[in-house]
Amino acid sequence: MGDVNALVTLAKPDMAAVDALIIERMQSDVPVIPALAEHLISAGGKRLRPLLTVASARACGGEGDIVAARKLAASVEFIHTATLLHDDIVDSSEMRRGKVAAHLIWGAASSVLVGDFLFARAFELMVETDSIKALGVLATASSVIAEGEVLQLTRSHDVNLDEDTYLQIIRAKTAELFAAACETGALGAGVSAEKVAALREYGMALGIAFQLSDDALDYGATSEALGKNAGDDFAEGKVTLPLLLAIERSKGDEDAFWERTIHRGDRKDGDFEHALKIMRGTGAINATLDRAYEYADQAKAALAILPDSDWRKALEAVADYAVSRGA
Amino acid sequence: MGDVNALVTLAKPDMAAVDALIIERMQSDVPVIPALAEHLISAGGKRLRPLLTVASARACGGEGDIVAARKLAASVEFIHTATLLHDDIVDSSEMRRGKVAAHLIWGAASSVLVGDFLFARAFELMVETDSIKALGVLATASSVIAEGEVLQLTRSHDVNLDEDTYLQIIRAKTAELFAAACETGALGAGVSAEKVAALREYGMALGIAFQLSDDALDYGATSEALGKNAGDDFAEGKVTLPLLLAIERSKGDEDAFWERTIHRGDRKDGDFEHALKIMRGTGAINATLDRAYEYADQAKAALAILPDSDWRKALEAVADYAVSRGA
Repeated sequence: MGDVNALVTLAKPDMAAVDALIIERMQSDVPVIPALAEHLISAGGKRLRPLLTVASARACGGEGDIVAARKLAASVEFIHTATLLHDDIVDSSEMRRGKVAAHLIWGAASSVLVGDFLFARAFELMVETDSIKALGVLATASSVIAEGEVLQLTRSHDVNLDEDTYLQIIRAKTAELFAAACETGALGAGVSAEKVAALREYGMALGIAFQLSDDALDYGATSEALGKNAGDDFAEGKVTLPLLLAIERSKGDEDAFWERTIHRGDRKDGDFEHALKIMRGTGAINATLDRAYEYADQAKAALAILPDSDWRKALEAVADYAVSRGA
Repeated sequence: MGDVNALVTLAKPDMAAVDALIIERMQSDVPVIPALAEHLISAGGKRLRPLLTVASARACGGEGDIVAARKLAASVEFIHTATLLHDDIVDSSEMRRGKVAAHLIWGAASSVLVGDFLFARAFELMVETDSIKALGVLATASSVIAEGEVLQLTRSHDVNLDEDTYLQIIRAKTAELFAAACETGALGAGVSAEKVAALREYGMALGIAFQLSDDALDYGATSEALGKNAGDDFAEGKVTLPLLLAIERSKGDEDAFWERTIHRGDRKDGDFEHALKIMRGTGAINATLDRAYEYADQAKAALAILPDSDWRKALEAVADYAVSRGA
């Protein structure tokens, strides 16, 4: 049902170069900086976003410089890491990638500043590629991500959040960087505007599919599958699509329950289980997964413009993986 | 004794355009963003950094596009504003530009994210100028500033801080953005590498002069002159040059006092007055001001390469102003 392994194998030499760049460029004479950055970066994760950047360059079969694509890939990972550092402060998260969150070890102040440092280093790397277009794409992505985060911050406990606003939030805070990762890879490869647009579309749909699938998994997956605990979103009173649909579909019956647990944030033992029961009864989780499958299909369709290749197949498999995790 | 007025008058049309750009580009459909940004930006201050950017372009008498210099000036102000928002969280500051600090009104989370937003918007604006060199200068400045902030964070209560490290901190956290503001102005004007380097040198020396002078004023100026309370640095236990010199020069006599008030952070009524007495007795404040004057002279000397003009004279007057405030 899809996996990332094919892509990981194909991209091994590229990603070794990207990893080396990441390690090299996160160095600083100020010891806290590499220590804090390494804590998060060495914890790994799949490096999915930079992987998409190099894969997009390769799948386009462009004539561009793969060195540029690799630098852009490292930039994308720095931007992602910076947003994670800042997000964990914003959400007061305790864990990240299976480790204690950096702000709980080095303090919020250091996390803010090291995030800023990595963000700036990302732009220094981009400048080296001489691609003003890629710079524009990643600068815009960065402002859109921040906007999405603020929107989420102000609306995430709102039991009246509508589906459009929710989609606007996940497009901005998650899918935009996936889209930019793919788009800059294509730009780095120097291919036609049509292919660049196709890769952007792929990344955007893929990012939405990933987020919807994550949101569904948070009401059903084991903690191993996500590297965080299922039930986290509910525990934070965060309104995601499954919750939003469950609220809508249980209107009249469960208003007081949602008002108390989400809006007022007054949750007690057994509430998560009750929420799960409503979710299953209203089909909210499956409806969310159906939506995720639609976006995964959209992502794959966008790739049709590319020449047939192992790279293209691997990108298609990632779209399947996005929605089949934990299944 | 120097002032900023001549420069403000000369640059009025340029700065009106820069202000319009700033207002236009800080907008967002997410209401918290322009509200928070405006709180800080409309509080004003002198807009010294963007003023230096347009003035550097004008003083170089280059053939470049003044529109580019104005965009770079707005970018510089966005970067500055973003760092202020993040600094106030890092330092838990209560006031900024005579107003309650943004994080105390909208929360630290919003301040972190709006800072990120403004930082990203700065890079979007730079991209529009098509000047990859200016982008490189401001990207590097941004990472150097973050490094300087982290260095300060980890060393600022250290009674053994040496003068070199202190200078390294203020070069990074203050002077680097002054240098970049001037350098990008010259780059925007498209002048010779020699003039670009001279403007950078001017900005760097000017920034150091400003910071040293601020540090001295914090042990003597009225609160009107600085828009913050004199004594703030001592109240925060922050080691600046006057303090560092006072500690050095009172070795053997006052070690227990500094150890308690700065290292352990245990301060009580009358301590600031006692610190001031040591400062005056050891000549620490005057020694700091002497250093500031040297850097102001260095700044003016760097301008010798430029054609004689009202702009150049106005930039010289700013260097005098940096060290004569509150006198």
